Amino acid sequence: MKVKVVTRILEANDRIAEDNRKRFQAAGVTVVNLMGAPGAGKTTLLERTIRALQSRLKVGVIEGDIVGTDDAERIGALGVPVVQINTGGACHLDANMISEVLDELPLAELDLLIIENVGNLVCPAEFKVGEDAKMMVLSIAEGHDKPLKYPLMFRESSALVLNKIDLLPYMNTDMNKVRNDSLALNPKLQIFEVSCATGEGIDRWAQWLSGLRS
Amino acid sequence: MKVKVVTRILEANDRIAEDNRKRFQAAGVTVVNLMGAPGAGKTTLLERTIRALQSRLKVGVIEGDIVGTDDAERIGALGVPVVQINTGGACHLDANMISEVLDELPLAELDLLIIENVGNLVCPAEFKVGEDAKMMVLSIAEGHDKPLKYPLMFRESSALVLNKIDLLPYMNTDMNKVRNDSLALNPKLQIFEVSCATGEGIDRWAQWLSGLRS
Repeated sequence: MKVKVVTRILEANDRIAEDNRKRFQAAGVTVVNLMGAPGAGKTTLLERTIRALQSRLKVGVIEGDIVGTDDAERIGALGVPVVQINTGGACHLDANMISEVLDELPLAELDLLIIENVGNLVCPAEFKVGEDAKMMVLSIAEGHDKPLKYPLMFRESSALVLNKIDLLPYMNTDMNKVRNDSLALNPKLQIFEVSCATGEGIDRWAQWLSGLRS
Repeated sequence: MKVKVVTRILEANDRIAEDNRKRFQAAGVTVVNLMGAPGAGKTTLLERTIRALQSRLKVGVIEGDIVGTDDAERIGALGVPVVQINTGGACHLDANMISEVLDELPLAELDLLIIENVGNLVCPAEFKVGEDAKMMVLSIAEGHDKPLKYPLMFRESSALVLNKIDLLPYMNTDMNKVRNDSLALNPKLQIFEVSCATGEGIDRWAQWLSGLRS
Protein backbone atom coordinates (compact mmCIF):
# COMPACT_ATOMS: atom_id res chain seq x y z
CA MET A 1 0.00 0.00 0.00
CA LYS A 2 2.75 2.40 1.00
CA VAL A 3 4.64 1.42 -2.16
CA LYS A 4 1.59 2.21 -4.27
CA VAL A 5 1.36 5.71 -2.79
CA VAL A 6 5.01 6.35 -3.59
CA THR A 7 4.60 5.07 -7.14
CA ARG A 8 1.64 7.35 -7.72
CA ILE A 9 3.53 10.35 -6.34
CA LEU A 10 6.51 9.59 -8.59
CA GLU A 11 4.31 9.18 -11.67
CA ALA A 12 2.56 12.49 -11.03
CA ASN A 13 5.94 14.10 -10.47
CA ASP A 14 7.30 12.79 -13.78
CA ARG A 15 4.38 14.29 -15.70
CA ILE A 16 5.03 17.73 -14.24
CA ALA A 17 8.78 17.30 -14.81
CA GLU A 18 8.07 16.64 -18.49
CA ASP A 19 6.04 19.87 -18.68
CA ASN A 20 8.93 21.75 -17.08
CA ARG A 21 11.34 20.19 -19.57
CA LYS A 22 9.25 21.36 -22.54
CA ARG A 23 9.18 24.84 -21.08
CA PHE A 24 12.97 24.84 -20.64
CA GLN A 25 13.47 23.61 -24.22
CA ALA A 26 11.16 26.29 -25.60
CA ALA A 27 13.16 28.92 -23.69
CA GLY A 28 16.46 27.46 -24.94
CA VAL A 29 17.87 27.05 -21.44
CA THR A 30 20.02 24.11 -20.32
CA VAL A 31 19.02 22.92 -16.86
CA VAL A 32 21.17 21.18 -14.26
CA ASN A 33 19.88 19.59 -11.04
CA LEU A 34 22.75 19.89 -8.52
CA MET A 35 22.58 17.45 -5.62
CA GLY A 36 24.69 16.38 -2.65
CA ALA A 37 24.72 15.85 1.11
CA PRO A 38 24.48 18.78 3.55
CA GLY A 39 27.87 20.48 3.71
CA ALA A 40 29.26 18.90 0.52
CA GLY A 41 29.84 22.44 -0.76
CA LYS A 42 27.06 22.82 -3.32
CA THR A 43 26.54 26.56 -2.82
CA THR A 44 30.26 27.35 -2.74
CA LEU A 45 30.72 25.32 -5.93
CA LEU A 46 27.86 27.30 -7.46
CA GLU A 47 29.54 30.60 -6.53
CA ARG A 48 32.84 29.44 -8.06
CA THR A 49 31.08 28.09 -11.16
CA ILE A 50 29.08 31.25 -11.76
CA ARG A 51 32.23 33.39 -11.47
CA ALA A 52 34.00 31.12 -13.96
CA LEU A 53 31.14 31.14 -16.49
CA GLN A 54 29.64 34.60 -16.04
CA SER A 55 31.53 36.19 -18.96
CA ARG A 56 30.44 33.44 -21.37
CA LEU A 57 26.97 32.36 -20.27
CA LYS A 58 23.87 33.90 -18.73
CA VAL A 59 23.29 31.80 -15.61
CA GLY A 60 20.22 31.63 -13.35
CA VAL A 61 19.73 29.71 -10.12
CA ILE A 62 16.93 28.07 -8.13
CA GLU A 63 17.92 27.43 -4.51
CA GLY A 64 16.22 24.64 -2.56
CA ASP A 65 16.35 24.60 1.23
CA ILE A 66 14.11 23.41 4.05
CA VAL A 67 14.04 26.96 5.48
CA GLY A 68 15.93 30.21 5.05
CA THR A 69 17.28 32.37 2.24
CA ASP A 70 21.02 32.34 3.03
CA ASP A 71 21.99 30.55 -0.17
CA ALA A 72 19.84 32.73 -2.42
CA GLU A 73 21.42 35.81 -0.85
CA ARG A 74 24.92 34.45 -1.51
CA ILE A 75 24.04 33.74 -5.16
CA GLY A 76 22.12 37.00 -5.60
CA ALA A 77 25.24 38.89 -4.51
CA LEU A 78 26.90 37.68 -7.74
CA GLY A 79 24.30 39.54 -9.80
CA VAL A 80 22.52 36.53 -11.27
CA PRO A 81 18.75 35.88 -11.20
CA VAL A 82 17.91 33.60 -8.29
CA VAL A 83 14.76 32.22 -6.66
CA GLN A 84 14.67 30.53 -3.25
CA ILE A 85 12.30 27.61 -2.65
CA ASN A 86 11.66 26.67 0.97
CA THR A 87 10.34 23.12 1.10
CA GLY A 88 9.08 23.34 4.69
CA GLY A 89 9.82 19.82 5.83
CA ALA A 90 10.42 18.12 2.48
CA CYS A 91 13.90 16.63 2.04
CA HIS A 92 14.04 17.14 -1.74
CA LEU A 93 12.76 19.35 -4.54
CA ASP A 94 10.02 18.00 -6.78
CA ALA A 95 8.81 19.01 -10.23
CA ASN A 96 5.81 20.90 -8.90
CA MET A 97 7.91 23.10 -6.62
CA ILE A 98 10.05 24.03 -9.63
CA SER A 99 7.01 24.62 -11.84
CA GLU A 100 5.59 27.05 -9.31
CA VAL A 101 8.60 29.39 -9.36
CA LEU A 102 9.43 29.40 -13.08
CA ASP A 103 7.51 32.63 -13.67
CA GLU A 104 9.91 34.35 -11.27
CA LEU A 105 12.89 33.75 -13.61
CA PRO A 106 13.70 35.35 -17.00
CA LEU A 107 13.95 31.90 -18.61
CA ALA A 108 14.22 33.10 -22.22
CA GLU A 109 17.25 35.23 -21.33
CA LEU A 110 19.13 32.39 -19.62
CA ASP A 111 21.65 29.95 -21.13
CA LEU A 112 22.07 27.80 -18.03
CA LEU A 113 19.74 27.27 -15.06
CA ILE A 114 21.26 25.52 -12.07
CA ILE A 115 18.84 24.08 -9.51
CA GLU A 116 20.53 23.49 -6.16
CA ASN A 117 18.61 20.73 -4.44
CA VAL A 118 18.09 20.24 -0.69
CA GLY A 119 21.17 18.77 1.01
CA ASN A 120 20.46 15.03 0.96
CA LEU A 121 22.18 12.04 -0.71
CA VAL A 122 18.97 10.02 -1.01
CA CYS A 123 15.59 11.37 -2.16
CA PRO A 124 16.62 14.20 -4.52
CA ALA A 125 17.88 11.50 -6.92
CA GLU A 126 14.35 10.02 -7.13
CA PHE A 127 12.52 13.16 -8.23
CA LYS A 128 12.98 14.52 -11.75
CA VAL A 129 12.38 18.25 -11.99
CA GLY A 130 12.68 18.61 -15.80
CA GLU A 131 16.47 18.89 -15.87
CA ASP A 132 18.77 18.01 -18.79
CA ALA A 133 21.26 16.47 -16.39
CA LYS A 134 21.71 15.64 -12.72
CA MET A 135 25.07 16.33 -11.08
CA MET A 136 26.32 15.66 -7.59
CA VAL A 137 28.91 17.06 -5.23
CA LEU A 138 30.66 14.84 -2.70
CA SER A 139 33.02 16.27 -0.10
CA ILE A 140 36.09 14.07 0.30
CA ALA A 141 35.61 14.65 4.06
CA GLU A 142 32.47 12.47 3.84
CA GLY A 143 34.66 9.40 3.37
CA HIS A 144 35.22 6.83 0.63
CA ASP A 145 32.28 4.54 1.48
CA LYS A 146 29.57 6.83 0.09
CA PRO A 147 29.12 5.45 -3.47
CA LEU A 148 28.22 1.97 -2.24
CA LYS A 149 25.97 3.31 0.56
CA TYR A 150 24.03 5.82 -1.55
CA PRO A 151 24.18 4.24 -5.02
CA LEU A 152 21.12 5.79 -6.68
CA MET A 153 22.52 9.34 -6.78
CA PHE A 154 25.79 8.11 -8.30
CA ARG A 155 23.81 6.15 -10.90
CA GLU A 156 21.53 9.07 -11.80
CA SER A 157 24.25 11.72 -12.07
CA SER A 158 26.11 12.70 -15.24
CA ALA A 159 28.92 14.28 -13.25
CA LEU A 160 30.47 13.81 -9.80
CA VAL A 161 32.35 16.76 -8.35
CA LEU A 162 34.73 15.62 -5.61
CA ASN A 163 35.11 18.76 -3.49
CA LYS A 164 37.45 19.83 -0.67
CA ILE A 165 40.50 18.07 -2.14
CA ASP A 166 42.58 20.64 -0.20
CA LEU A 167 41.77 18.48 2.88
CA LEU A 168 43.26 15.31 1.36
CA PRO A 169 46.58 15.60 3.27
CA TYR A 170 44.66 15.56 6.57
CA MET A 171 42.22 12.71 5.83
CA ASN A 172 42.59 9.03 5.01
CA THR A 173 40.03 9.13 2.20
CA ASP A 174 40.87 6.52 -0.44
CA MET A 175 40.23 8.47 -3.65
CA ASN A 176 40.80 5.42 -5.86
CA LYS A 177 38.02 3.60 -4.02
CA VAL A 178 35.68 6.57 -4.48
CA ARG A 179 36.46 6.74 -8.19
CA ASN A 180 36.33 2.98 -8.81
CA ASP A 181 33.11 2.38 -6.84
CA SER A 182 31.45 5.38 -8.53
CA LEU A 183 32.43 4.21 -12.02
CA ALA A 184 31.31 0.65 -11.23
CA LEU A 185 27.85 2.07 -10.46
CA ASN A 186 27.89 4.40 -13.46
CA PRO A 187 30.60 3.90 -16.11
CA LYS A 188 29.62 7.12 -17.93
CA LEU A 189 30.06 9.33 -14.86
CA GLN A 190 32.35 12.32 -15.42
CA ILE A 191 34.49 12.88 -12.33
CA PHE A 192 36.00 16.23 -11.39
CA GLU A 193 38.28 16.92 -8.43
CA VAL A 194 38.04 20.44 -7.10
CA SER A 195 38.68 22.61 -4.10
CA CYS A 196 36.18 25.42 -3.73
CA ALA A 197 38.45 26.80 -0.99
CA THR A 198 41.48 27.25 -3.29
CA GLY A 199 39.81 27.22 -6.72
CA GLU A 200 41.79 24.19 -7.90
CA GLY A 201 40.02 22.24 -10.65
CA ILE A 202 37.19 24.74 -11.10
CA ASP A 203 38.21 25.80 -14.63
CA ARG A 204 38.14 22.26 -16.00
CA TRP A 205 34.73 21.61 -14.41
CA ALA A 206 33.27 24.92 -15.63
CA GLN A 207 34.60 24.30 -19.12
CA TRP A 208 32.91 20.90 -19.26
CA LEU A 209 29.67 22.33 -17.86
CA SER A 210 29.56 25.10 -20.46
CA GLY A 211 30.07 22.42 -23.15
CA LEU A 212 26.66 20.94 -22.25
CA ARG A 213 25.10 23.88 -24.11
CA SER A 214 26.11 22.45 -27.49
CA MET B 1 -4.09 15.92 0.34
CA LYS B 2 -0.35 15.27 0.38
CA VAL B 3 -0.18 16.75 3.89
CA LYS B 4 -2.98 14.47 5.06
CA VAL B 5 -1.15 11.39 3.82
CA VAL B 6 2.01 12.47 5.61
CA THR B 7 0.11 13.17 8.83
CA ARG B 8 -1.51 9.76 8.76
CA ILE B 9 1.85 8.07 8.16
CA LEU B 10 3.38 9.94 11.11
CA GLU B 11 0.46 9.06 13.41
CA ALA B 12 0.72 5.37 12.53
CA ASN B 13 4.47 5.57 13.07
CA ASP B 14 4.05 7.13 16.52
CA ARG B 15 1.76 4.31 17.65
CA ILE B 16 4.33 1.69 16.67
CA ALA B 17 7.11 3.76 18.27
CA GLU B 18 5.14 3.74 21.53
CA ASP B 19 4.89 -0.07 21.37
CA ASN B 20 8.66 -0.27 20.80
CA ARG B 21 9.23 2.05 23.76
CA LYS B 22 7.19 -0.16 26.09
CA ARG B 23 9.17 -3.16 24.92
CA PHE B 24 12.47 -1.35 25.58
CA GLN B 25 11.30 -0.30 29.05
CA ALA B 26 10.23 -3.83 29.90
CA ALA B 27 13.66 -5.08 28.86
CA GLY B 28 15.39 -2.34 30.88
CA VAL B 29 17.37 -1.05 27.90
CA THR B 30 18.12 2.62 27.23
CA VAL B 31 17.71 3.46 23.53
CA VAL B 32 19.44 6.19 21.55
CA ASN B 33 18.54 7.22 17.98
CA LEU B 34 21.80 8.46 16.41
CA MET B 35 21.34 10.74 13.41
CA GLY B 36 23.46 12.87 11.10
CA ALA B 37 24.30 13.62 7.47
CA PRO B 38 26.17 11.12 5.28
CA GLY B 39 29.84 11.21 6.21
CA ALA B 40 29.36 13.02 9.55
CA GLY B 41 31.14 10.09 11.19
CA LYS B 42 28.27 8.26 12.88
CA THR B 43 29.72 4.76 12.52
CA THR B 44 33.22 5.81 13.57
CA LEU B 45 31.75 7.59 16.61
CA LEU B 46 29.84 4.39 17.40
CA GLU B 47 33.04 2.34 17.22
CA ARG B 48 34.84 4.79 19.53
CA THR B 49 31.85 4.94 21.90
CA ILE B 50 31.48 1.16 22.14
CA ARG B 51 35.19 0.77 22.91
CA ALA B 52 34.92 3.43 25.64
CA LEU B 53 31.80 1.88 27.23
CA GLN B 54 32.29 -1.84 26.64
CA SER B 55 33.80 -2.57 30.07
CA ARG B 56 30.91 -0.82 31.88
CA LEU B 57 27.80 -1.40 29.74
CA LYS B 58 26.37 -4.08 27.52
CA VAL B 59 25.79 -2.28 24.20
CA GLY B 60 23.79 -3.40 21.17
CA VAL B 61 23.40 -1.71 17.79
CA ILE B 62 20.87 -1.45 14.98
CA GLU B 63 22.42 -0.15 11.75
CA GLY B 64 20.25 1.66 9.19
CA ASP B 65 21.42 2.02 5.60
CA ILE B 66 19.80 2.21 2.19
CA VAL B 67 21.82 -0.84 1.08
CA GLY B 68 24.79 -2.85 2.24
CA THR B 69 26.12 -4.33 5.47
CA ASP B 70 29.47 -2.50 5.78
CA ASP B 71 28.51 -0.70 8.99
CA ALA B 72 27.10 -3.78 10.70
CA GLU B 73 30.31 -5.65 9.87
CA ARG B 74 32.41 -2.86 11.38
CA ILE B 75 30.31 -2.91 14.58
CA GLY B 76 30.09 -6.71 14.70
CA ALA B 77 33.91 -6.84 14.68
CA LEU B 78 33.80 -5.23 18.14
CA GLY B 79 31.90 -8.22 19.50
CA VAL B 80 28.58 -6.50 20.21
CA PRO B 81 25.16 -7.70 19.01
CA VAL B 82 24.21 -5.85 15.82
CA VAL B 83 21.40 -6.00 13.27
CA GLN B 84 21.51 -4.30 9.86
CA ILE B 85 18.35 -2.79 8.40
CA ASN B 86 18.40 -2.00 4.68
CA THR B 87 15.65 0.51 3.93
CA GLY B 88 15.72 -0.04 0.16
CA GLY B 89 15.01 3.49 -0.98
CA ALA B 90 13.78 5.05 2.26
CA CYS B 91 15.88 7.95 3.56
CA HIS B 92 15.14 7.30 7.26
CA LEU B 93 14.32 4.54 9.73
CA ASP B 94 10.76 4.31 10.99
CA ALA B 95 9.24 2.60 14.03
CA ASN B 96 7.98 -0.37 12.03
CA MET B 97 11.42 -1.16 10.60
CA ILE B 98 12.77 -1.21 14.16
CA SER B 99 9.87 -3.29 15.44
CA GLU B 100 10.55 -5.93 12.80
CA VAL B 101 14.14 -6.58 13.88
CA LEU B 102 13.78 -6.48 17.69
CA ASP B 103 13.52 -10.27 17.94
CA GLU B 104 17.01 -10.49 16.47
CA LEU B 105 18.56 -8.73 19.50
CA PRO B 106 19.03 -10.01 23.08
CA LEU B 107 17.16 -6.95 24.43
CA ALA B 108 16.92 -8.15 28.05
CA GLU B 109 20.71 -8.53 28.21
CA LEU B 110 21.45 -5.03 26.90
CA ASP B 111 21.99 -1.81 28.87
CA LEU B 112 22.21 0.50 25.88
CA LEU B 113 20.86 0.09 22.35
CA ILE B 114 22.17 2.56 19.79
CA ILE B 115 20.21 2.88 16.55
CA GLU B 116 22.30 4.42 13.78
CA ASN B 117 19.88 6.08 11.39
CA VAL B 118 20.29 6.54 7.62
CA GLY B 119 22.67 9.39 6.77
CA ASN B 120 20.30 12.34 6.34
CA LEU B 121 19.88 15.66 8.20
CA VAL B 122 16.16 15.92 7.44
CA CYS B 123 13.65 13.07 7.68
CA PRO B 124 15.14 10.89 10.43
CA ALA B 125 14.24 13.69 12.88
CA GLU B 126 10.55 13.33 11.98
CA PHE B 127 10.18 9.63 12.73
CA LYS B 128 10.19 8.39 16.31
CA VAL B 129 11.37 4.82 16.67
CA GLY B 130 10.70 4.37 20.39
CA GLU B 131 13.99 5.88 21.57
CA ASP B 132 14.66 7.52 24.95
CA ALA B 133 16.72 10.22 23.27
CA LYS B 134 17.75 11.41 19.82
CA MET B 135 21.35 12.50 19.26
CA MET B 136 23.08 13.92 16.24
CA VAL B 137 26.57 14.06 14.81
CA LEU B 138 27.72 17.03 12.72
CA SER B 139 31.11 17.05 11.01
CA ILE B 140 32.74 20.46 11.33
CA ALA B 141 33.70 19.99 7.65
CA GLU B 142 29.98 20.42 6.82
CA GLY B 143 30.23 24.13 7.65
CA HIS B 144 28.72 26.44 10.24
CA ASP B 145 25.43 27.14 8.44
CA LYS B 146 23.85 23.75 9.17
CA PRO B 147 21.80 24.52 12.34
CA LEU B 148 19.77 27.25 10.65
CA LYS B 149 19.33 25.23 7.44
CA TYR B 150 18.27 21.94 9.09
CA PRO B 151 16.68 23.16 12.35
CA LEU B 152 14.38 20.24 13.18
CA MET B 153 17.17 17.76 13.91
CA PHE B 154 18.90 20.26 16.21
CA ARG B 155 15.57 20.88 18.00
CA GLU B 156 14.80 17.19 18.42
CA SER B 157 18.23 16.11 19.65
CA SER B 158 19.35 15.89 23.28
CA ALA B 159 23.01 15.96 22.29
CA LEU B 160 25.05 17.34 19.40
CA VAL B 161 28.42 15.72 18.76
CA LEU B 162 30.66 18.03 16.72
CA ASN B 163 33.05 15.62 15.03
CA LYS B 164 36.31 15.96 13.06
CA ILE B 165 37.62 18.83 15.20
CA ASP B 166 41.12 17.69 14.15
CA LEU B 167 40.31 19.40 10.82
CA LEU B 168 39.64 22.80 12.45
CA PRO B 169 43.09 24.23 11.60
CA TYR B 170 42.40 23.61 7.90
CA MET B 171 38.81 24.93 7.72
CA ASN B 172 37.18 28.27 8.34
CA THR B 173 34.27 26.78 10.28
CA ASP B 174 33.00 29.29 12.86
CA MET B 175 32.49 27.06 15.89
CA ASN B 176 30.90 29.85 17.93
CA LYS B 177 28.25 30.27 15.26
CA VAL B 178 27.56 26.52 15.26
CA ARG B 179 27.23 26.50 19.04
CA ASN B 180 25.17 29.69 19.29
CA ASP B 181 22.77 28.85 16.47
CA SER B 182 22.31 25.31 17.83
CA LEU B 183 21.58 26.55 21.35
CA ALA B 184 19.21 29.22 20.02
CA LEU B 185 17.18 26.40 18.44
CA ASN B 186 17.46 24.14 21.48
CA PRO B 187 18.74 25.67 24.74
CA LYS B 188 18.91 22.25 26.44
CA LEU B 189 21.18 20.75 23.78
CA GLN B 190 24.33 19.13 25.20
CA ILE B 191 27.27 19.85 22.90
CA PHE B 192 30.38 17.68 22.65
CA GLU B 193 33.44 18.35 20.52
CA VAL B 194 35.26 15.22 19.43
CA SER B 195 37.68 13.83 16.91
CA CYS B 196 37.00 10.22 16.05
CA ALA B 197 40.31 10.26 14.18
CA THR B 198 42.42 11.12 17.27
CA GLY B 199 40.02 10.11 20.08
CA GLU B 200 39.93 13.63 21.53
CA GLY B 201 36.75 14.33 23.51
CA ILE B 202 35.43 10.75 23.33
CA ASP B 203 35.78 10.04 27.06
CA ARG B 204 33.67 13.03 28.10
CA TRP B 205 30.96 12.12 25.56
CA ALA B 206 30.94 8.43 26.55
CA GLN B 207 30.79 9.36 30.24
CA TRP B 208 27.73 11.55 29.63
CA LEU B 209 26.08 8.88 27.49
CA SER B 210 26.54 6.20 30.15
CA GLY B 211 24.95 8.61 32.67
CA LEU B 212 21.66 8.36 30.73
CA ARG B 213 21.19 4.92 32.26
CA SER B 214 20.42 6.39 35.67
